[in-house]
Amino acid sequence: MGDENLHSEMRNVELRLGPVPRKYLGPIVDAVVASYRGAEIDGEDAAPFPSRREVTQILAEVLELLLPGRPGDHEVVGGDLLEQEVHRRVSRLFESLSRQIALSFRHGCMKAGQPCLECDKLGQEKALALLGRIPRLRTVLLGDVRAAFDTDPAARSLEEVVLSYPGLVAIAVYRMAHELWLLDVPFVPRMMTEHAHGTTGIDIHPGALIGSNFFIDHGTGVVIGETTEIGDNVTIYQGVTLGGYRFRRLEDGSLERGYKRHPTVGDNVVIYAGATILGGDTVIGARSVIGGSVWLTHTVPADAVVTIEEPDLKYKVGY
Amino acid sequence: MGDENLHSEMRNVELRLGPVPRKYLGPIVDAVVASYRGAEIDGEDAAPFPSRREVTQILAEVLELLLPGRPGDHEVVGGDLLEQEVHRRVSRLFESLSRQIALSFRHGCMKAGQPCLECDKLGQEKALALLGRIPRLRTVLLGDVRAAFDTDPAARSLEEVVLSYPGLVAIAVYRMAHELWLLDVPFVPRMMTEHAHGTTGIDIHPGALIGSNFFIDHGTGVVIGETTEIGDNVTIYQGVTLGGYRFRRLEDGSLERGYKRHPTVGDNVVIYAGATILGGDTVIGARSVIGGSVWLTHTVPADAVVTIEEPDLKYKVGY
Amino acid sequence: MGDENLHSEMRNVELRLGPVPRKYLGPIVDAVVASYRGAEIDGEDAAPFPSRREVTQILAEVLELLLPGRPGDHEVVGGDLLEQEVHRRVSRLFESLSRQIALSFRHGCMKAGQPCLECDKLGQEKALALLGRIPRLRTVLLGDVRAAFDTDPAARSLEEVVLSYPGLVAIAVYRMAHELWLLDVPFVPRMMTEHAHGTTGIDIHPGALIGSNFFIDHGTGVVIGETTEIGDNVTIYQGVTLGGYRFRRLEDGSLERGYKRHPTVGDNVVIYAGATILGGDTVIGARSVIGGSVWLTHTVPADAVVTIEEPDLKYKVGY
Repeated sequence: MGDENLHSEMRNVELRLGPVPRKYLGPIVDAVVASYRGAEIDGEDAAPFPSRREVTQILAEVLELLLPGRPGDHEVVGGDLLEQEVHRRVSRLFESLSRQIALSFRHGCMKAGQPCLECDKLGQEKALALLGRIPRLRTVLLGDVRAAFDTDPAARSLEEVVLSYPGLVAIAVYRMAHELWLLDVPFVPRMMTEHAHGTTGIDIHPGALIGSNFFIDHGTGVVIGETTEIGDNVTIYQGVTLGGYRFRRLEDGSLERGYKRHPTVGDNVVIYAGATILGGDTVIGARSVIGGSVWLTHTVPADAVVTIEEPDLKYKVGY
Repeated sequence: MGDENLHSEMRNVELRLGPVPRKYLGPIVDAVVASYRGAEIDGEDAAPFPSRREVTQILAEVLELLLPGRPGDHEVVGGDLLEQEVHRRVSRLFESLSRQIALSFRHGCMKAGQPCLECDKLGQEKALALLGRIPRLRTVLLGDVRAAFDTDPAARSLEEVVLSYPGLVAIAVYRMAHELWLLDVPFVPRMMTEHAHGTTGIDIHPGALIGSNFFIDHGTGVVIGETTEIGDNVTIYQGVTLGGYRFRRLEDGSLERGYKRHPTVGDNVVIYAGATILGGDTVIGARSVIGGSVWLTHTVPADAVVTIEEPDLKYKVGY
Repeated sequence: MGDENLHSEMRNVELRLGPVPRKYLGPIVDAVVASYRGAEIDGEDAAPFPSRREVTQILAEVLELLLPGRPGDHEVVGGDLLEQEVHRRVSRLFESLSRQIALSFRHGCMKAGQPCLECDKLGQEKALALLGRIPRLRTVLLGDVRAAFDTDPAARSLEEVVLSYPGLVAIAVYRMAHELWLLDVPFVPRMMTEHAHGTTGIDIHPGALIGSNFFIDHGTGVVIGETTEIGDNVTIYQGVTLGGYRFRRLEDGSLERGYKRHPTVGDNVVIYAGATILGGDTVIGARSVIGGSVWLTHTVPADAVVTIEEPDLKYKVGY
């Protein structure tokens, strides 16, 4: 309603280009408000979600703890000043992480809408646990940086990898989101990896299991599904999908959720651009090489090289 | 000119690292200014465009009206306060939308460079029309949210879809840009969908026609062209192209524009990752399933399953 | 350490939700600080990098000089006011560019950590050289804008290309980064193209050589490697890779770097979506057309049309 009336009224009436009368906006406001009342999601009485802006800010600050050179332009801080600066950052992160994690628990809590002491405690506990894992994550990430340098002939230095490789960002964000996933924090891990997906084109589900020294080159279009398992020293190029294949449905027709739907990739495997590997029973054996554009829904043994028969091409010269 | 002289002078002269003398920057300024004078586009006398920053801000605010939970961290507002808040948001959006739409008309107006009352009226009329459609768009979007939950085994809740699914953002932005497209607003619809393309990797032209309950999973690399038509309950995965095929040219060699160049997809179709479907005469019949990496330039009947013969693979083990 | 203790203590102790005692955060801070001491990269004594935020800001400002209409919403400024405005922008860019380039040299400089006069001089020299090339870059970019309009039937005007085509942004950023690459500036060129990669999904290495009137449509997933050479009037669609093939290794097993690893593409070539062309000896002859999804590791003569034999499809109707 409204829409058509407003239109014709607008066309027939000489519209004074001053402040628009309440009568034009009023019906729109009423209709928007009505659409919130009793809605299945995002209704008027919905509990607050974690804040996207805050989660993005947290990502930036954890990344800065993990790779302090990446934002650049810092003065070198040594000795006690370094300690003070790290303390300042860790304290601030503790506050913001605790709050966002508490919000993510509170959303599903019976007391939604009211501050819940249990949720706040969970927020603090999980935030502390994540922060406590940062030194170990830092060690793991330096392995990822070195893997990039050792694998990409275009890399000029470890520093260049830190400063400009999107694969490193996607992996760093995944590694921190995965810790929150292991801590059973709702919403926030997926918000983190989807933010990285947006900035890098690399979509890693926080539930995936990924070993050390992981390298993704270029990366746009990479998809790594929730139940994927990846060993150590694996390299993946742009457009690779490690995905599901033929989802199971329950007797009522709804999707079965939570079973292993995505492949397992062994140590020291290389998967070239655009390869698609699907299915929860599919295993890529250690040290295998999967060529560009290969499409696989079955297991490959260790030490295999799998490439496509180049499809026949049609040539026409001097058309 | 300039460039080489400056270089050698810089090298020969002991450069005092104080303020750089006007003489170095002056010739550069003159050359840049000269390049604006009489230029075919972006010349000195070019009319103002809509503002990219404002259009981005408008997108964020409309998204917040459509899916109020998505930005997160809100206090729940009920009753009259909700109405006041919505009124505040709708009024602000009306102002900014009116202005950007007016600018987009003014760019092509004969009186470019001068305020034009007709353009300002059009800006207000079209802005009101878009705002009036928000309640209906909200209903359509909730269908898209439910479609994502019903199709993706990794989705844990409707709320997770609202908070973190990039496909939902791309679809929401497309749906609002499409309304402006139907209202014949220049520039702004494409600026909106290209912004979403940048943040999601999903490129939907605002001219496409897309039915209800649409789901795009992962989404990076999806391209949906201007004259594509998509029915209800369709699901598309990452890397799918619904594109043009062999563009027509006019007798003078220039491109023919505006005819149907992109496919038609029936109700309840699923198109898996990396499939490419091309051409304005290509129709995918209702309830068909198009497998991953399929390449199609011809019509497929209803109820079909089309998959690639897995290309022959070459295996070498223990290389 | 720490992590487990903290956990059990948190669970056993009634946690007062006031300020968290120093004793919980202290061990985390100490462990993070320890992880910086003596680290191979990003260690405590690391020299400052260029600032990612500043480089992003510089990109925006150079883009605004190159395509002044793109940000939109400007009042038209004519005559002396235009000159003053350009002078203001060029001066500000000179300051920020000089500083970031100086930082990028200083990082590898013996006197890292201390201001180095040589690095500052290099910063000013290279910044001036880049700014001096802006008028020529502007001419080249207007050719790219026209190429987009002439090639894409969905383009309604040159202005629409300037306002909303991501390919144009990726190309503009590449062209400016390539100038810095030719000036032997470390870090900054790659930071620039990776920023554009993030916002457009188009990954062009600053070392590539690309001729005039270049058009990339849609673009998500495009990869153009460091030693690629592309002639004039070339068009590329989404998902095209111009990449390396079988990297060489030195006798010690490490990668050989710097030799030509990526293809050469002649004038007036068109490469459709998802084509993959690999290898430093691979040459695509002038005026050739490479079809969608073609996979090529060998040379193609001039005036050729190369398409895939459409792979056999399996049909099942009425499943």
